[in-house]
Amino acid sequence: MSYIKDNFLLTNKVAEKLYFEYAKDMPIFDYHCHLSEKELLADKEFDSIYSVWLKGDHYKWRLMRNFGIDEQYITGNKSDKEKFITYCKTVASAFGNPLYHWSQMELEEYFDCDKEINEKNAEYIWNHCNKYIKQNHIKPSDIIKKSKVKYIFTTNEVFDDLSTFIKLKSKFSEFSVLPAFRADKVMNIEAKTYLENLKKLEVNGRYLSSLSDLENILEDRLKEFVSVGCRAADIALEKALPISSREEAEKVFSKLLRNNVLNLGEADTFKGYMTYFLLKLYAKYNIVTEIHIGAMRNNNSIMLDKLGLDTGFDSISDADSTSNLSKLLDGLNCENSLPKVILFNLNPKMNLELASLAGCFQDASSVGKIQYGAAWWFLDNKSGMEKHLSDLSSVSHIGAFIGMLTDSRSFLSYPRHHYFRRIICNYFGNLVKNGEITEDLGLIGETISNICYSNANKYFGLKE
Amino acid sequence: MSYIKDNFLLTNKVAEKLYFEYAKDMPIFDYHCHLSEKELLADKEFDSIYSVWLKGDHYKWRLMRNFGIDEQYITGNKSDKEKFITYCKTVASAFGNPLYHWSQMELEEYFDCDKEINEKNAEYIWNHCNKYIKQNHIKPSDIIKKSKVKYIFTTNEVFDDLSTFIKLKSKFSEFSVLPAFRADKVMNIEAKTYLENLKKLEVNGRYLSSLSDLENILEDRLKEFVSVGCRAADIALEKALPISSREEAEKVFSKLLRNNVLNLGEADTFKGYMTYFLLKLYAKYNIVTEIHIGAMRNNNSIMLDKLGLDTGFDSISDADSTSNLSKLLDGLNCENSLPKVILFNLNPKMNLELASLAGCFQDASSVGKIQYGAAWWFLDNKSGMEKHLSDLSSVSHIGAFIGMLTDSRSFLSYPRHHYFRRIICNYFGNLVKNGEITEDLGLIGETISNICYSNANKYFGLKE
Amino acid sequence: MSYIKDNFLLTNKVAEKLYFEYAKDMPIFDYHCHLSEKELLADKEFDSIYSVWLKGDHYKWRLMRNFGIDEQYITGNKSDKEKFITYCKTVASAFGNPLYHWSQMELEEYFDCDKEINEKNAEYIWNHCNKYIKQNHIKPSDIIKKSKVKYIFTTNEVFDDLSTFIKLKSKFSEFSVLPAFRADKVMNIEAKTYLENLKKLEVNGRYLSSLSDLENILEDRLKEFVSVGCRAADIALEKALPISSREEAEKVFSKLLRNNVLNLGEADTFKGYMTYFLLKLYAKYNIVTEIHIGAMRNNNSIMLDKLGLDTGFDSISDADSTSNLSKLLDGLNCENSLPKVILFNLNPKMNLELASLAGCFQDASSVGKIQYGAAWWFLDNKSGMEKHLSDLSSVSHIGAFIGMLTDSRSFLSYPRHHYFRRIICNYFGNLVKNGEITEDLGLIGETISNICYSNANKYFGLKE
Repeated sequence: MSYIKDNFLLTNKVAEKLYFEYAKDMPIFDYHCHLSEKELLADKEFDSIYSVWLKGDHYKWRLMRNFGIDEQYITGNKSDKEKFITYCKTVASAFGNPLYHWSQMELEEYFDCDKEINEKNAEYIWNHCNKYIKQNHIKPSDIIKKSKVKYIFTTNEVFDDLSTFIKLKSKFSEFSVLPAFRADKVMNIEAKTYLENLKKLEVNGRYLSSLSDLENILEDRLKEFVSVGCRAADIALEKALPISSREEAEKVFSKLLRNNVLNLGEADTFKGYMTYFLLKLYAKYNIVTEIHIGAMRNNNSIMLDKLGLDTGFDSISDADSTSNLSKLLDGLNCENSLPKVILFNLNPKMNLELASLAGCFQDASSVGKIQYGAAWWFLDNKSGMEKHLSDLSSVSHIGAFIGMLTDSRSFLSYPRHHYFRRIICNYFGNLVKNGEITEDLGLIGETISNICYSNANKYFGLKE
Repeated sequence: MSYIKDNFLLTNKVAEKLYFEYAKDMPIFDYHCHLSEKELLADKEFDSIYSVWLKGDHYKWRLMRNFGIDEQYITGNKSDKEKFITYCKTVASAFGNPLYHWSQMELEEYFDCDKEINEKNAEYIWNHCNKYIKQNHIKPSDIIKKSKVKYIFTTNEVFDDLSTFIKLKSKFSEFSVLPAFRADKVMNIEAKTYLENLKKLEVNGRYLSSLSDLENILEDRLKEFVSVGCRAADIALEKALPISSREEAEKVFSKLLRNNVLNLGEADTFKGYMTYFLLKLYAKYNIVTEIHIGAMRNNNSIMLDKLGLDTGFDSISDADSTSNLSKLLDGLNCENSLPKVILFNLNPKMNLELASLAGCFQDASSVGKIQYGAAWWFLDNKSGMEKHLSDLSSVSHIGAFIGMLTDSRSFLSYPRHHYFRRIICNYFGNLVKNGEITEDLGLIGETISNICYSNANKYFGLKE
Repeated sequence: MSYIKDNFLLTNKVAEKLYFEYAKDMPIFDYHCHLSEKELLADKEFDSIYSVWLKGDHYKWRLMRNFGIDEQYITGNKSDKEKFITYCKTVASAFGNPLYHWSQMELEEYFDCDKEINEKNAEYIWNHCNKYIKQNHIKPSDIIKKSKVKYIFTTNEVFDDLSTFIKLKSKFSEFSVLPAFRADKVMNIEAKTYLENLKKLEVNGRYLSSLSDLENILEDRLKEFVSVGCRAADIALEKALPISSREEAEKVFSKLLRNNVLNLGEADTFKGYMTYFLLKLYAKYNIVTEIHIGAMRNNNSIMLDKLGLDTGFDSISDADSTSNLSKLLDGLNCENSLPKVILFNLNPKMNLELASLAGCFQDASSVGKIQYGAAWWFLDNKSGMEKHLSDLSSVSHIGAFIGMLTDSRSFLSYPRHHYFRRIICNYFGNLVKNGEITEDLGLIGETISNICYSNANKYFGLKE
């Protein structure tokens, strides 16, 4: 048996009671992830513990690099088993890293394997898990059902085909898979592939030769997304940009269409306008906007060339955002066009700035209209979550919080929701134990259940 | 009985001993608040629990907005009782927010009501408190005396009439009410009402037509403030600005007097000089300068129009300040004109920068001449105070700290001093319990008593 | 007996076991300090407890200033004993400051004095320690041997004479003293003494009249450093600068050689290039680069004139660094010229930014090639270290960490290594106690021993 006991992360009796009675059995609402709707529809039995647990997981790759492991054992030519064993050896002493917990939880939850992950046990775990997968024919939908997931919002490009979502609706009744609208690829005008991406919008005889064309096509695409159940849109920004005028953006866009190279300032001008345009559009269709700020991406050019995007070479940005963000939200609010917004921020030094800013734009159109989003990516760990909860509750109202997401590319990430739930139950349990809040566990438990599931459900306007 | 027990926030026996023997009974020195000296003089019996506890408190309003409450129940047309009950419901699950504690402490301390605040008890609390106020004829001075407040520094505009302070002196012997000099309204040259405010300085036949005139009138006004006991001045800045020359400031000022519109850079030029001028003036009259940095104000234009300033739409700024602040303090120090300064900062990510900077300008003219001020406004809560104490003590000397303030508009805020005292006693108690400091409680207790009251008393040069 | 017990900072049994079995007896590798190799060679018996413990220690001076002590008792004319007693009085109530612990540990470890430091005991301690020094003829090498120090990297100017290191090698077999190459004085082109410093490089008939000359001489000097065992170089920057081209740097350098005054931008241009040049050079000779960022130096001009550099008037900068640093590391990496780098950062708000950035440039040429350096200077205290450990482990792999340094000018600073070791053992001990990691203490203990000594040993390529 591993170190993960029933009362894992629950350091007192109240915390245990809160978790087991109010959190553990709540369904999961995963309102932002990177799962593939096509793989979900295919629902293919997993090949091996390597392919489902390690193959595509850049969090795990990064941990290995930090431990001095040769790239051959990470993304290189070594065998699956060698890579697996090397990861087991690596994670065994990664004390304090969330992967230390997640990896163990994933094996225990889905493969009935409670051996501690280390070099000594690696061979056993390899054999056990692969056998378990074969014997039980484990496939994505098994994981999802076992985890009581009710809603999954995948992240989709604006030019994605949406027919898969219709098929998913008829295939699975236990859970819903809905697309989130992500227009980044037609916003990030400095990207080499930008014009290529624009082309993908030119379907059904439409031709895109002006900013108006782009705006119209985006609105039409959004309507199609809405028609298959879309409730959310994603935007990723290193930092919030100043709002720029439509005229300025139009000039930049025309310049690009004439195949001219843009400078950084021009790109920011375009993005500053597009952010504003998109949020206004989302407000019109009552779409929740999930803004992800604070990542500094692709720091390592060599590895970007070798492995591509999202392979573990991003970091936390120190770019400040508060002032521009305030103007963006205020500008939209003044036009009565401020959508529901979730601010995901990757730099915890800005927790209080952004959580207090969110509090300036609340209204009764929704509980917690402007959300300060959960601890995310590099912050999706015990200390990151504890700081988020403490910071959020100190300048806002914790009872309005819509809780956790996975942001994951892996089918095995749902234990992160339980990781979060244990941490929030322990947070409240400690407050009770220390005499800092009421002993009325019903009242506390209701708040917890809301944060685990019900608040998100209401926020996105979905049926219970 | 509520969750607030005698040992509230005191998690071990040493902490309890320190609080009850060295902290609890110390008087209160409230060296920065926004109480009205006129209301203090009038000393009118409170109308109702609504008017004294909820009516003007934008902290409480903000919490309600964060919980999705309709503005009708906050500043709108709903009845006092409906608003009161809505707030009770809101605060009941605001776990981790300081209002959860403050609200309960206020009712217990001043209205003998120890029912836990929640929707179920709201009606009872409403009746009980209103009856208690009527029966006991509770008025401001009762609160102040019960709380053992010895000094109150109100915040006054440079053009305020000071006669009230003379009347207060003869009316109350148990406590002193002294004005703090706030020149912000004649410094913030970008404000639409700036010229209007200048006009208010043109009294007794004086006419203001140059920067020299302004400087002279300000010095004369400061002398008048000093004559009624003023010991402190306030300045609020989003961030410290570069020092600019008198010549440049004069140009900007003249331009404005000729009714020309200034740009942002010009306004900063003027403010950069005025900050410098004012600190120099304060040094001359041995006035403590309380600098408040780090607030980003009035984010929500619509609500600013509807409700005005200070109604709960400010947030924490990310503007950096360290470098300019260093030059400001150094420039004044080089001219032997650095006054005592309290740096209040609203962004805890800058705690160590500013506390370590303060340490570069200490001298023996006063213990802790440059203070890194207490956790304030958004930080006036348990985690904010604990971080402040830990950060301050790690790079400075905790024994020189002048402790807590209320910064409040409400007569009911003095429990915040006891909140702070419990937290600091618990902080030291834990150090003893964990074997990290001496067991000589006399030595620790003396430091605590100093921080609670005596240090401030010496710092502001007032009699014990 | 003082408050420092055997289990000091070890709050549970596992923590104690980890410290006493895996940490306490490990040798010390002090890979960055400011000890004088000449004093080490002279190895003179200490004069008095004042001269070795207080005389040159600007950390202690600063604490006194923060407590309102007159400069006469710090660096002024008062007698050694008066200064000593004043410091004892000061530190006695500096609860939460690392000097409170360090001072006590130093007296206990090296002078067999376990009286608590306070005003009452000061006279006794003065007499006891001075007597102890005389009776036991305590000299630097006694301290170093008692502390089991194996390697000391002093900080040396590029023009320093290196013969002392050869003599030290034959004098002491128990420990090695090796120089670290610090080129700051020929990089900081804005300094008044810059040309003077350049001159010091013009030895053995060499004449320096171009940037090429400087580059060549620096490479030659580095080779000489390497020949006496140098393994590391130091660079101090308030913040990382953009890389600039050799052409631009050459222009600036020529301008200066023609005795023209440079502006700030020109100085930054030169430093931006030199940083890049130096790191590339260090890569060529497999020299570890220790980058120190985040200090804002010499805030107080008056005291700079009076007492000079490094006398306690520096503070923590808020200058952001992440983006330029990313480009610097990436630029070097693209040329296959990225040396091993230790990033020391003085502002903990940037911990996660920099630790996550380091993770983008790891490769298997060394375990933990890019280190996020230990909590340093203002952060070299309990909360600073705990935050560093938590932040580092959450976004990186704690097992690759090379651990602690002293960065000290004092021979008495080695207890800081044990301070660190107790804190890391307590950190891991708590994880075990709370059921968050394995109970296999062998595995944890190996990681701890590695961090205490073995990782640094391998990282710097030295024999066990």
